[in-house]
Amino acid sequence: MDEVRVPCMNAGYEATSYANNSLLQKTVILKARPVLEETIKDMLMTTCFPASFKVADLGCSSGPNTLLVISEILDTIHAMCQQFNQKSPEIQVFLNDLPENDFNNVFKSLPAFNQRLKKDKGDQFGPCFVSGVPCSFYERLFPSRSIHLIHSSSSVHWLSKVPENLGSNKKNIYIAKSSPPSVYKAYLEQFQRDFSSFLSLRSEEIIVGGRMFLTFVGRSIPDPSSKDCCYLWELLAKSFLELVDEGVVEAAKVDSFDIPCYHPCEEEVRDIVEKEGSFNLNKLEIFEVNWDPSDDPSNKEFVFNKYRSGKNVANCVRAATEPMLLACHFGKSIIDTLFNRYANHVAQHLAVEKTKFIEIVVSMTKI
Amino acid sequence: MDEVRVPCMNAGYEATSYANNSLLQKTVILKARPVLEETIKDMLMTTCFPASFKVADLGCSSGPNTLLVISEILDTIHAMCQQFNQKSPEIQVFLNDLPENDFNNVFKSLPAFNQRLKKDKGDQFGPCFVSGVPCSFYERLFPSRSIHLIHSSSSVHWLSKVPENLGSNKKNIYIAKSSPPSVYKAYLEQFQRDFSSFLSLRSEEIIVGGRMFLTFVGRSIPDPSSKDCCYLWELLAKSFLELVDEGVVEAAKVDSFDIPCYHPCEEEVRDIVEKEGSFNLNKLEIFEVNWDPSDDPSNKEFVFNKYRSGKNVANCVRAATEPMLLACHFGKSIIDTLFNRYANHVAQHLAVEKTKFIEIVVSMTKI
Repeated sequence: MDEVRVPCMNAGYEATSYANNSLLQKTVILKARPVLEETIKDMLMTTCFPASFKVADLGCSSGPNTLLVISEILDTIHAMCQQFNQKSPEIQVFLNDLPENDFNNVFKSLPAFNQRLKKDKGDQFGPCFVSGVPCSFYERLFPSRSIHLIHSSSSVHWLSKVPENLGSNKKNIYIAKSSPPSVYKAYLEQFQRDFSSFLSLRSEEIIVGGRMFLTFVGRSIPDPSSKDCCYLWELLAKSFLELVDEGVVEAAKVDSFDIPCYHPCEEEVRDIVEKEGSFNLNKLEIFEVNWDPSDDPSNKEFVFNKYRSGKNVANCVRAATEPMLLACHFGKSIIDTLFNRYANHVAQHLAVEKTKFIEIVVSMTKI
Repeated sequence: MDEVRVPCMNAGYEATSYANNSLLQKTVILKARPVLEETIKDMLMTTCFPASFKVADLGCSSGPNTLLVISEILDTIHAMCQQFNQKSPEIQVFLNDLPENDFNNVFKSLPAFNQRLKKDKGDQFGPCFVSGVPCSFYERLFPSRSIHLIHSSSSVHWLSKVPENLGSNKKNIYIAKSSPPSVYKAYLEQFQRDFSSFLSLRSEEIIVGGRMFLTFVGRSIPDPSSKDCCYLWELLAKSFLELVDEGVVEAAKVDSFDIPCYHPCEEEVRDIVEKEGSFNLNKLEIFEVNWDPSDDPSNKEFVFNKYRSGKNVANCVRAATEPMLLACHFGKSIIDTLFNRYANHVAQHLAVEKTKFIEIVVSMTKI
């Protein structure tokens, strides 16, 4: 099998870019905000408002969400300084993603971001120094004991690589109802290795008493083929297999392709954090987001249209997987067809059942 | 006049990109190496090999020189650790340039850079964490007292903006033989403000005992219209004026265009450092580099060809000024013609006289 790279989102501002298809990730950030705020407040109180505050966002990607997260964090720090009449710390922000991430786009929006910051919060706040750190978060990113707060949203469900020894998972691209137990085992073990390594690397970088705040896509029940985590990929596999039947895609290519991500259940997460031992798990919360996040009760103007929702979901999955599919030599030409099929399958499915993503939110303290 | 941005080098890897036309800057880096090595060695001895070493390269640009500087610095640290049997520090490298700089290109070359580092220096060296800092160096870039070594090569001769009150400098784009004294005064005062502000900003960021190492293009004598610094721009002005005569470029546009850079003499530099007062000037050296740096006595294979040398110089100036010329609405279409003319004028000049750049090297300690 060709090497599958850990996903890097679609660059630029095209119709299929991540920047234009990141409503899911935005919804997650907004829904998780209260827990993030609580994490920052608690940390500022226990560390007595440090003079220099270093925060890292891992898997920052490139789009409106990149600076949204940073804005939220700065808002909370600012509010806390005002409330407790404390001098604002100097804030150093590290935006991390893979070297292939479109950092240029993020950087170009920084002057306007800084101007807005000054206008909204005044000269007494900050300064805020933003830098980009281009490296996989499955490697060391920062000097020892240098970071106060690590944030990562919608990222750590991506594995460092496709699990080895997947054995017979033909016609599937993730754990599916039809997968043998060995497939689940291989995926779980890869996640255990990766997430444990992630915790261990971060524990070296974060100060004692520092916090780590994560959101990622999990599943609601221990059954690894739970619909809320697998069916999205089963429908993509189905779209692939149609193209195989029509002779557009080689069967062997689909057989050997698997998605390098894992959607853990709560127990699996608790178990890894406990075994790794560097962090206290202060809070683990779970919430749901519709596959099409614009289909939300709070969105009063929303009128359900299965095709539009199907397209939204397909664009979201495409933004996150296209560079990976291209790296596996599926070829630019089949991508449009594949995701048109996929949008249609998702539409038919959503018309019957509004499946939801299970989002896991975790707040931890470095021991 | 349209706003002139501080220059950002031509992006990408095209024939006219900075990455492909940066031999001058490379030559300067290599010639200045002994002083940089001495600076780092001296600093490591006086700070007793800190556990975490933070170094910043300001105006890093995007091309082969970006990582060349970092390699030199890492080589020296590695050699010193070996010589004195010291544990390698964790090294954090901040690459700074304007937000428009092509950081993506630099970042994509980092995985190979890190692999080479590991292969050459072994697992005991580093780790080395590289990040990008997209911001003008005429603003604060880093938290207070956080940086050990600041390096900046071929950058601080660029001003924060075109001097105001240039008055009557029509038909010129920099200080020229025909400029009135007020033009020199306006340029000098802008440089005094900018360089003084640069020193003051850096003095807040650098630790006491930390070092700053700079190279920039100056001039050899106090006369501000000294040929070694002005004639390069006079020939560009001449090329512009030909296009004006031919009706291709509006006269008013050239009249209102001026280059935001300044080439100080040694006395001016010493004076500003002394007045600003944050740094001890340990060393100031001057060396010369041919306008066409491939025309070098050490380059045994070099055979002088005025047209090739003219083209080399024109490409070098184009890589550094094209984004600025476009920002001033000169229009993509005239750029090729302009620099063809310029290459020819430079060729004719070099056939008569091999003018040289005067490079000033400065090594300072934060008091």
